[in-house]
Amino acid sequence: MHTLAITGGRVLRPDLTVERADVLIDRDRGEILELVADPVGDSDGPDADETLDATNALVTPGFVNGHCHVAMTLLRGYADDKQLDAWLQEDIWPVEAALEAEDVRAGAELGILEMIKGGITSFADMYFFMEEVAGAVENAGVRARLGHGVISVGKDHEDAREDAQTGLDVAAELDGMADGRVKTAFMPHALTTVTEEIFEEFVPKARDLGVPIHIHANETENEVTPIVEERGVRPLEYARDVGLLEPEDFLAHGVHLDEREIEILADCGASVIHCPASNMKLASGMAPVQALRDAGVTVGIGTDGAASNNDLSMLDEARDAAMIGKLAADDASAVSAESVVEMMIRGSAEAIGFDTGRLEPGAPADLAVIDLEKPHLTPAHDLVSHLAYAVAAADVRHTVCDGRVLMRDREVLTLDETAVRKRAIERAEGLLVRADV
Amino acid sequence: MHTLAITGGRVLRPDLTVERADVLIDRDRGEILELVADPVGDSDGPDADETLDATNALVTPGFVNGHCHVAMTLLRGYADDKQLDAWLQEDIWPVEAALEAEDVRAGAELGILEMIKGGITSFADMYFFMEEVAGAVENAGVRARLGHGVISVGKDHEDAREDAQTGLDVAAELDGMADGRVKTAFMPHALTTVTEEIFEEFVPKARDLGVPIHIHANETENEVTPIVEERGVRPLEYARDVGLLEPEDFLAHGVHLDEREIEILADCGASVIHCPASNMKLASGMAPVQALRDAGVTVGIGTDGAASNNDLSMLDEARDAAMIGKLAADDASAVSAESVVEMMIRGSAEAIGFDTGRLEPGAPADLAVIDLEKPHLTPAHDLVSHLAYAVAAADVRHTVCDGRVLMRDREVLTLDETAVRKRAIERAEGLLVRADV
Repeated sequence: MHTLAITGGRVLRPDLTVERADVLIDRDRGEILELVADPVGDSDGPDADETLDATNALVTPGFVNGHCHVAMTLLRGYADDKQLDAWLQEDIWPVEAALEAEDVRAGAELGILEMIKGGITSFADMYFFMEEVAGAVENAGVRARLGHGVISVGKDHEDAREDAQTGLDVAAELDGMADGRVKTAFMPHALTTVTEEIFEEFVPKARDLGVPIHIHANETENEVTPIVEERGVRPLEYARDVGLLEPEDFLAHGVHLDEREIEILADCGASVIHCPASNMKLASGMAPVQALRDAGVTVGIGTDGAASNNDLSMLDEARDAAMIGKLAADDASAVSAESVVEMMIRGSAEAIGFDTGRLEPGAPADLAVIDLEKPHLTPAHDLVSHLAYAVAAADVRHTVCDGRVLMRDREVLTLDETAVRKRAIERAEGLLVRADV
Repeated sequence: MHTLAITGGRVLRPDLTVERADVLIDRDRGEILELVADPVGDSDGPDADETLDATNALVTPGFVNGHCHVAMTLLRGYADDKQLDAWLQEDIWPVEAALEAEDVRAGAELGILEMIKGGITSFADMYFFMEEVAGAVENAGVRARLGHGVISVGKDHEDAREDAQTGLDVAAELDGMADGRVKTAFMPHALTTVTEEIFEEFVPKARDLGVPIHIHANETENEVTPIVEERGVRPLEYARDVGLLEPEDFLAHGVHLDEREIEILADCGASVIHCPASNMKLASGMAPVQALRDAGVTVGIGTDGAASNNDLSMLDEARDAAMIGKLAADDASAVSAESVVEMMIRGSAEAIGFDTGRLEPGAPADLAVIDLEKPHLTPAHDLVSHLAYAVAAADVRHTVCDGRVLMRDREVLTLDETAVRKRAIERAEGLLVRADV
């Protein structure tokens, strides 16, 4: 057995208490073996083959980015300050029409590099050329739940069927890659961009395949009104009717939900991934996060793509979630620091179907070590408050996933930062030339 | 003449275009001498006594934090997730009652250290023991507009008068300190916490002294309703009637403003400092920033105190301002990247009465150099977008104020980071013990 020890730090436990302990990891199995309490912080730590220093640092579960389009890092800052519909139709879709596999590989590597530097160890991703994203995940050492974005808009029925079949094929082919670090889902884009016929034919096939379903839902009013007008039911009633709300399924956004839809989610057991930055930047609205949590719905947090954020920091996202959650509830006690820390770690993990997000024996060894010796983290009255409101991506000292050190002292070991940045710049330039925008 | 050159970078010009240029500075006068265009980025830069490397970096004016209570860094994360009134009465005021001068010095040094590390070169501050804040400003090398927070609540009229006199005395004594880097203002706390008699007696005295007036206004509904009910006018009508809205004056927050009040601000010429993070965290509401700008009101941005934020990053604040500004206007094109960059630099500077915030010959040499070689800033389609949405405090490579290098390669030269952090931790602990909370 090869071991890894994280020594000298304070450890965030599943109940969100913090205790001084060393973490001993079985690198071969990628599991936490033991938390060795060290109340005074003076032990040398357990013997291990490899050691990471967590002195004056907080050891937290790795952050889980519940909804992303990681390759969109190539379009970071390319088109800001527009409404979702116009932004998609005028800026994003024309460029995406020119996407090549190598663009997706370059964008995914850049986004994963950024995520590792911000303590993110797993993410869910809906995009195209997903074998490239899976390859990037495999090399970089993180975990991901991946799916091809299935879309019917602009296609005749046969082309739409072919695209949906691609969604199933990708889910079947990639599942279990990278020693099980890659899992998949069937990912129809949204309730208004995929036809009812496609849902009726392919949702049962996804169930047969045994993968969850991930979809954008109720992001803007424009996704609600057409369904209400055409079908006389709310979007999530329609979603339930076409079989989309099983307990393993997870919806992105859930901004415009009425009480009845919140009840449906609670009854069906599907999860919601809250994307506060994207919802603010696109003026989509404020998700009823406190109401969802009060109803017992599992809520995770996601960054969405970098084109509508513009970074992939779950620490920014946690702060945003607390901030906008209070405004949405008109209550400063809503969506507390504890809530957002729970959502960014355990909530997201449960939503996307990973058993990570808990530092205890037997759990997957996915964690981040946060350097607390910073002016903006001084004094440290409450480390959960710091995680929610003050810690930034640049404060992450080390990142570990599946028992493997992905970043040590801010140096990413699994990706060549300079080369990844250079290739992303080149591919982004070439993409815009090809798209002729 | 002693000179400083910032070489190899891209410079953000007052019109928010970016050009490759070296910046030559007269250190003795603290002024920019010249921008030496270097379109290809291959010159060695002008001869100078001291040089800062800005290769692969953006040179921006130093950020201007338009509203702060800097010593409240001691209470960072001490009490979160509460409404403004309860938070002040149950958590903040009982601790502030136990404040000593050395607490304020320690908290101010910690906050200024954090601000320098985030590229902030000037700030406006309302608090107590302001001679301590002025001393910290002097040593740290930044600029500030300082004032004693005058408050009538809980005092009889004579005590309230004495406190207001302290506000005037502090403004008179500290103005011009630190070679003019310290300026002052008369700072009544708020329209509902200072009596009309105090305004009537002391506002004219402040005018005689020639200092601007800074006050919290319209932050929550609880500051609006009592005035409307008692006086039959909106708060800013009352403010104008007691002489508070001169062109040199600046109000913090301005969340709950009606159209008439926006017109009054535009007519009178007073400025507003928008504090988006604080407004969200305390669920105070969403300021009508786009409407204020459309009406021609000068709007700056401020962090407010660290206890309601919880950091002092103007880069977080700019992103927050863009995000919440879109929600408030229900329009993703509102409060654009260009708008927030203008507000965090030039808007804030104009509001608090400093002629900084512009990189051109003759301007004060206050600037920050932002390292662009980061995954989360790759690719760089638009550097103004990056400043608004993606740059973080930790990306600031160097900070210069008044021609003096305050931080070089992330090392603050004017404050001892370890000692400042240690003293702040000790004072925060002692303060909570003394306050017996």
